Order: sequence, then structure tokens, then C-alpha cells
Amino acid sequence: SEEQPATISLAVIPGDGIGPEVTAEAVKVLEKATAAGSVTFELTEYELGAEHWLATGETLPDATLEAIKQHDAILFGAVGAAPGDTAIPSGLIERELLLKLRFSLDHYVNLRPSRLYPGVESPLGNPGEVDFIVVREGTEGPYAGNGGVLREGTPQEIATEVSLNTAHGVERVVRDAFRRASARPRRKLTLVHKHNVLVNAGRLWKRTVEKVAEEFPEVTHDYLHVDAATIFMVSDPSRFDVIVTDNLFGDIITDLAAAITGGIGLAASGNLNMDRTYPSMFEPVHGSAPDIAGQQKADPTAAILSAALMLRHLGFEAEAGRVEDAVAADIAARTGARRSTAEVGDAIAAAVS
Amino acid sequence: SEEQPATISLAVIPGDGIGPEVTAEAVKVLEKATAAGSVTFELTEYELGAEHWLATGETLPDATLEAIKQHDAILFGAVGAAPGDTAIPSGLIERELLLKLRFSLDHYVNLRPSRLYPGVESPLGNPGEVDFIVVREGTEGPYAGNGGVLREGTPQEIATEVSLNTAHGVERVVRDAFRRASARPRRKLTLVHKHNVLVNAGRLWKRTVEKVAEEFPEVTHDYLHVDAATIFMVSDPSRFDVIVTDNLFGDIITDLAAAITGGIGLAASGNLNMDRTYPSMFEPVHGSAPDIAGQQKADPTAAILSAALMLRHLGFEAEAGRVEDAVAADIAARTGARRSTAEVGDAIAAAVS
Ligand SMILES: CC(C)[C@H](C(=O)O)[C@@H](O)C(=O)O
Ligand SMILES: CC(C)[C@H](C(=O)O)[C@@H](O)C(=O)O
Repeated sequence: SEEQPATISLAVIPGDGIGPEVTAEAVKVLEKATAAGSVTFELTEYELGAEHWLATGETLPDATLEAIKQHDAILFGAVGAAPGDTAIPSGLIERELLLKLRFSLDHYVNLRPSRLYPGVESPLGNPGEVDFIVVREGTEGPYAGNGGVLREGTPQEIATEVSLNTAHGVERVVRDAFRRASARPRRKLTLVHKHNVLVNAGRLWKRTVEKVAEEFPEVTHDYLHVDAATIFMVSDPSRFDVIVTDNLFGDIITDLAAAITGGIGLAASGNLNMDRTYPSMFEPVHGSAPDIAGQQKADPTAAILSAALMLRHLGFEAEAGRVEDAVAADIAARTGARRSTAEVGDAIAAAVS
Repeated sequence: SEEQPATISLAVIPGDGIGPEVTAEAVKVLEKATAAGSVTFELTEYELGAEHWLATGETLPDATLEAIKQHDAILFGAVGAAPGDTAIPSGLIERELLLKLRFSLDHYVNLRPSRLYPGVESPLGNPGEVDFIVVREGTEGPYAGNGGVLREGTPQEIATEVSLNTAHGVERVVRDAFRRASARPRRKLTLVHKHNVLVNAGRLWKRTVEKVAEEFPEVTHDYLHVDAATIFMVSDPSRFDVIVTDNLFGDIITDLAAAITGGIGLAASGNLNMDRTYPSMFEPVHGSAPDIAGQQKADPTAAILSAALMLRHLGFEAEAGRVEDAVAADIAARTGARRSTAEVGDAIAAAVS
């Protein structure tokens, strides 16, 4: 890809818990995959997350956000306090750091591939071939942070959550999903929503899919209610090729999708700004897992696969493929013997051809 | 139960598609289970649903709703137009009939048991023992029908969905769930929500669970984000005993729960008004399945188990148990040979001791 800079300026946000450990392995593999010199990564590390908040009271200062905006891409580990933690207001780090990055950087495509790698055990008895992607809207819906509380703590309390859905927001993510479907062998797109109940948002999503479908006559499309989609996810996951869905439904079904393809230890994601007005961000779907942090117990595969998504997004298709092949080879050779986080990273780095 | 009337006035709404077929079998088994004379059911059938709307333009007229309110309980089949149907506005029957009944009759406990019967195949390779109940809130949340559209059909369209959550609504369903947990051997309650993102509603739900928990010191409780709950549903469903959750999350996870316990052909539900100000309603979780309607292909087991839930709700515990035992015996003896809807109903009725 001729227009790519030879140097990529990369913001690295290792975060909390197992974040730093898995991110270190992703960087290791990234450097191995690009050692031939096609591209060099210049890394700038940002200390952010629950630990940082406890030390400084900062979640994501404006100046830091501005600095992050200057990079070409972001590698993100994981953030979040331990479940029992009471010093940190619940969800604060997730909202004020992770979601703030997704929203401020206009990451409207939250891309989450689900593939059952040969050799990986699925909780499904007979999963068949599983290889689909979820295109989750990333900048609106029930995640807009809209809503409020009246008479909090009284018997008359009312609490609302407002899902905001715009033609602009829905159309761009739907078009992205059709583009991806068009480039895949099966060329099939499934809209997942709940339009029989959420009629206002549902009508917008359905109408938009019908409209954009006309630009992609080669793509077949269908519709599933989110409840029915979870049934197919366990009874016939092979039916899925590209799923497009809203922010909350996407959150739910991608965790389920990760579960049926071997667990969130393997699930990668990209928070993509497809207009490239701001850097995209790549992160494992898993959280910070404070219970096993610092013990070299975490599987860095999801972080490594997220780095591969980054390579592809930046135009380094061959390098991305080499990382994914190395991961597939490593997974196929797994014996069940315990390896440290660094050992898995070393093995995958060594397998990068 | 000494205060029960000897005669139960039952509204029967067979509905569309396979609804009439499965409801007929539920009535058959109900009559067999109560033939000894503990109680007689007086049936009044109401013609409602997509077919009725096409013929009359009526969904649920006020007078019909008033008449239904006079009964002691409601047996509901299934409603809904065929997916490709364009004569019926999408979701109309679901909202104006099914949801209208749930809301008008204040069915605040949507009870959905999930049990993996011996002999039933699960899509999970190693499901373990699965026996939990979901207490889904039934009268508010994102189902409140609140929200709107501005500038519909233009590039400036905005569509909203408003989730309404009240202290009144949350507290009564949470207390019901604790009561049920307290009466079960494992005495464990799990709140499923997404309080790190849906902070307003999330705070209300969490605070309410903490508060009501003090009345039930014998019940242990924990919390799962809805995305994580779907993971456990396929990786470790035995961890669940009683789940309490909001209307939409409950819709999603109960379909998933049905899928892992052998499919929605077996999943029963009760829409309960625990204050008994209006009749409760019992319905299979499955839909009207227009593609197989009228062909005696539908499995009536879910409808029959819903009738068992009704018997229990009305105080006929022994009769409910006899129906459930008959179902369990029938399921255990299933060979995979195709039986008609009526044959399954006959077999279960015959097995009722
Ligand atoms: C941590 C949380 C805010 C986040 C989300 O809900 O999007 C996570 O679950 C995810 O899927 O990336
Ligand atoms: C038909 C639909 C409105 C309904 C719901 O969403 O509650 C159904 O999915 C259910 O779970 O009973």
C-alpha cells in the first residue's frame, strides 16, 4: 500500500490488571511481524486506567486525549477496577476512559471477528465451521450516556436510559458492514435488532439496511431479533457471515460469540474510525481480570489478534496475515499444558514467518 | 389450598400459527390432571391475533380486555404474523395484543424456568445440571413504548428509545425473585444488568437488590453484566439458580436459556401478577411459527409446561407436579421418531398419574 507512511506512530494504553501483560506480548509479535522493515512502529505509552485514577484522580485529561489524537493508531490493553473495589465509582473508568475514547475518536465501527480456530474447544457439542464478523455500532444507541434519575433513593424514584439513534450513525455503520460482506465469500449480512418492540430505532435500522442493500445487490441480507440471534448463535452459528447491530446488542452477542469460539481469551476487536479523522483503537474483548493480574496467567492471544486487526486496518495485509497464521499454528499445537503469558507471546512471535 | 375456588374461570387465547394446536394439547393435559375433581376449569375462548386483526382490524378492544380481566387466569398460545407478511404492520400484534395484555394486567413477574430434562439434547457439549429460573421484569424498562422519531426518513433523522425504570417496578420484582430464591435449595440470586454503561437504571437495580437482600439473609446474591451472563450461560449454566433482570435483558437471556436446554419447543413461561389484582397469563416462550402452522408438527410441550406453571400459580401444586412428571417421563422416552402435536399431547395426558 504505497501511501502508507514507513513509520507508524502508535499510542499504547496498557491499562489495568492483565492489560500490561497481554499488551507487551502484542507489541512483541507486532515488532517481529514487521521486522523485515516494511514499517516501523514508534511507541508512546500512556498511563491510564483504574490505577492511574487512584493515583491522580484523572481518567482521560483533555491534553492526553489531544495527544492521543495525534497518533496513527492505538493499542489498548484492558481497564477497569476489581469487581469488589469500592474506592472507584462503578463503571467510571469504563465510561470516562474506554467509552470516552470510542466516542471522542468517532469509532463508529466496532469490529469483532468470531472464528473457531481448528484445535480450539467450543462449549458447543457440534459447532460446525464458525467464521463470522460482528459490526457493532460504536458511537450511539443506549451507550450515548443519555438518561437520568428523579427522586433518587425514594420509593418514587424513576430512572431512564435513552437510546439515541441517528440516520447518520446508522447509515455509515450499515454501509461499512455491507462493504465487508461484499468482500467475503458468502456475501451475507444479518441485521440484529428488536424492531417489534424498539419500534423507533428498529424502523430506522431496518429502513437503512433496505436502502443501503440496493448499493450491494451481490449481498443477501436477512433479519433476526436479538433474542432469536442468541438461539442461532448456539444452535447454528455457521449461519452467520456478517452481523450488523447496535451498540448494546453488539456488546451482548459478541461476548456470546466469543464464548462459543473458545472464550474471550481469543476474541479480538477493532474500534474503527473508517473516515480516518482520528486514530482507530485495537483491544482484546476481555477485561482487566484483576484476579489473575501480574501472574503471567493471562492468554495474550486476543491482544495479539487485535494487533493483527490493526496491521490490516493500516494497510499491512501481508503482515496481518502472518500474525494470524502464527496464531492459528500456535493454537493448533496447544496441548493444554500451562504456559505463561510471555511464553505464549514468544511462541507466536517465533511462529511469525 | 383451602381458599381456592373449586371452579377456575379460564380465558383461552389460542392466537395464530401453531398457537391453536399447542393450546389444544395444553387444555387436554390440564383436564386430565384435574379430572379427579380437585378443580374444574371453565373455558372461554377469545379469538385474537394476526388473523383476527386481518379480519376485523381489532387487536385488543377495550371490552375484550375488560372481559379477560374477569377470569382467574389466561392460557395464551402464540401470536404474530408470518415474517414476510406485509399486510400487518411489523410488531403490531406483539405490541397491541401480547405486550398490551402484559402491561394492562400488570404482569410484573415474567417467570421463565430453564431446566435441562434428562434425555433432552443440549447444543452444549457438556452442559452439566441446568435448573434455574429467570425472573424477568414484565411491565417497564425498554418495553415501556417510550421514545420517538424526529425528521423520519431524512438524513437528519433521530430515533429514540427510552427505558423507564421505577423504584416501585424494580423493587416488587426483585423481592419476588428473592422469595423464589429463598424457597429453592441453592438459595442464590444473580442480578443481570449492565450498570457500568446504563448507570441510571443500573444504580436503581443494584441498590434495590442490596436493600431487599437484607430481608433475605439466607439468600446469597451476586451480579453479572448481561454480556458476561451470556458467556456463563454456555460455559457454566449450572452456576445459575435464580436470575433477576430487566425486561429486555430477560427477553434475550431467556431465549438463550431455552436454546441450551433443548430449544424453545420446551420453554414455558408465566406472566404473573403476584398481587392478583388481575389474572396471570401462561404462554410458551416460542412464537407462532407460521411456517409449520396447521400441520401438527409443533411440539406442544412448552404450552403444556406453561399450563403446569398455571396450576402451581393457582395453588394446585400436586396437579402441577403431576403434569411436570408426565412431561419428564415423556421426554425421557422420546426416541426421535416424529409424532404429531396431538400424539405428544395424548402421550403426556396418558402419563399424568
Ligand atoms: C467495559 C464495557 C464498557 C465494554 C462495553 O460495554 O462496550 C465491554 O463490555 C466491551 O464489550 O468492550
Ligand atoms: C413477541 C415479543 C414481543 C416477546 C418479547 O419480546 O417479550 C417475545 O420475544 C417473548 O419473549 O415473549
